[in-house]
Amino acid sequence: MTSKVSATELRRFVSDVFRHEGMAAADAGAMADTLVWANLRGVDTHGVTRLPRYLEMIHEGLMNVGAKPAYSHPAPSSLVIDADRAPGPVVLSHAVERLKVLAKEHGIALALVGQMTHSGALGYYTSNLAEAGLACLAFNAGNAFMPYHGARGLALGTNPISIAVPGGDSQPLVLDMASSAVAMGKLTLARKTGTPLEPGWAVDEAGNPTTDPAKAAMSTPLGGPKGSGLSLMVEILASLLSGNPLVADALQKTGEGGKHRQNAMLIAIDIATFVDMAEFGSQVQRLVGALKALPLAAGSVNILMPGERGYLAMIERSASGIPLPPPVVTELAAVAERFKIDPLALQA
Amino acid sequence: MTSKVSATELRRFVSDVFRHEGMAAADAGAMADTLVWANLRGVDTHGVTRLPRYLEMIHEGLMNVGAKPAYSHPAPSSLVIDADRAPGPVVLSHAVERLKVLAKEHGIALALVGQMTHSGALGYYTSNLAEAGLACLAFNAGNAFMPYHGARGLALGTNPISIAVPGGDSQPLVLDMASSAVAMGKLTLARKTGTPLEPGWAVDEAGNPTTDPAKAAMSTPLGGPKGSGLSLMVEILASLLSGNPLVADALQKTGEGGKHRQNAMLIAIDIATFVDMAEFGSQVQRLVGALKALPLAAGSVNILMPGERGYLAMIERSASGIPLPPPVVTELAAVAERFKIDPLALQA
Repeated sequence: MTSKVSATELRRFVSDVFRHEGMAAADAGAMADTLVWANLRGVDTHGVTRLPRYLEMIHEGLMNVGAKPAYSHPAPSSLVIDADRAPGPVVLSHAVERLKVLAKEHGIALALVGQMTHSGALGYYTSNLAEAGLACLAFNAGNAFMPYHGARGLALGTNPISIAVPGGDSQPLVLDMASSAVAMGKLTLARKTGTPLEPGWAVDEAGNPTTDPAKAAMSTPLGGPKGSGLSLMVEILASLLSGNPLVADALQKTGEGGKHRQNAMLIAIDIATFVDMAEFGSQVQRLVGALKALPLAAGSVNILMPGERGYLAMIERSASGIPLPPPVVTELAAVAERFKIDPLALQA
Repeated sequence: MTSKVSATELRRFVSDVFRHEGMAAADAGAMADTLVWANLRGVDTHGVTRLPRYLEMIHEGLMNVGAKPAYSHPAPSSLVIDADRAPGPVVLSHAVERLKVLAKEHGIALALVGQMTHSGALGYYTSNLAEAGLACLAFNAGNAFMPYHGARGLALGTNPISIAVPGGDSQPLVLDMASSAVAMGKLTLARKTGTPLEPGWAVDEAGNPTTDPAKAAMSTPLGGPKGSGLSLMVEILASLLSGNPLVADALQKTGEGGKHRQNAMLIAIDIATFVDMAEFGSQVQRLVGALKALPLAAGSVNILMPGERGYLAMIERSASGIPLPPPVVTELAAVAERFKIDPLALQA
């Protein structure tokens, strides 16, 4: 049976775990906020289910809880962070706070974050900036999970891009999309249940399209050359501009090769520098209203804005709790036992 | 029989046409450069085949050859152009030249261009910036040609995004992709030839997926909610941030409604502010080399980088001429006759 836990208690637990691992309180809080945000939004693949793997990464020396990130400002409106393998949520949360100041000062600001570990849900950072009145574009480069269009075998990350904008009187609009046709989690689920895949979702080891979940070796790039081109550009912007190549190192088995690392580029634009903030907000609401007033397509049950599904989940889960499937509950209980921290208090 | 014309002669002709229409020599030159660049790159849908429609737009008062664009700098690193319905190539070429200076000064720079007419091929501007040592991201918002995911009927533009980066000793890498699954031109061609569409390309009037070219009413958004989310974000960034809503005006039949207008946002990043330019170039080449060394996927004949197909076409067409199908030759001859300008000299 699926258990439920409050967001507050889940944050307390995640924070305790990372404090036990030697993180400063603020950094452990950033880890908790990022992971629990994903659970609240219904993006459970990026929530506390990652915790055991994060702990492994700490013990394997991949994730550095004692990292000393180096900050530099190559230009007044730009921030570069050499993360020293710090967890993504720690350095990206710092980048977000700096971008709020830099974008308001300069109209547009840039952050490059190199050599971090897993970013967590990219939409967490962009929506945070949108709530502060900024438009944000974020690009995250990671390890290989999909082929390059026309080539066989793993080559590129499913590098996500996220774009968020303030929503006026309502929640921000938050687009958060991988450059692959479908998330890896959907392929795994289809394999477990034997459900045929939709055409265009996956290829087999030889690079042939397949709808057989047992033969699906990897996701295809979104729209073929579009998705692989997008992923490649994210690698160039986030990794090469920060001096941390991932793809070439992995393919040529040089440098840090296939070791887990990620890089990100974030651009923040201060809305109020360009248009009246209230007018912008009401124009976004007018646009949303016009789209929602359209007739439904055949088979469609609603017209959702980017990030709206996650927003609705957050309202529901904030009120009634975050569901945790039994294997996750068991894993988290084992962590509590091992670290001698207070076990997760599930809802009655 | 398809005729051929040199790029130089085609530029001369296009420039003469727009000078006849009252444009300044530099502006007519920008029109010629943009249209002929598309033809050279093999993107004939954005080349001189547009000329008759552009002339109609001038005569309908949609495209303003006597436009007085207003320039402002809401922040030192940002440029806003109110285009006064100037043709896209004229104002976007100005924006590109200003961005070269602003990005080198500030590390990152932004241009918003509102109320222009058709942009032409977006990759022309981003590759121009990449050749000057900048990474560029461009977003172009236009009139409705595709549905919003889940809704029926036209709602959004097939709003393209383009990302270009310098290629070191080689040509820039230039991604230029619509947010629709497939270009409108491909649907039109399939309708003419009766060729079945690939699944996921198009929907009928009711919003049902169809592979029947006769029933295909419009292209689908790339990857469903991803493509429509991307298009929506481009509308917000380019149109609402420049104060020129397109989608809401069209759907609510208010303001300028369905009248042809476009808006763009361009972001330029100076590579050399962040990393050594030569090192960046060699890392891009290393990445390209690693991808091209991969085994071919089944059915694939080559591994191309973003923009490489267009680059190869440009080499070929620069040498042997730009092919023009008979209907285009006839149309251009009629324009020459009407305007009393030197007719297009086709290659022998």
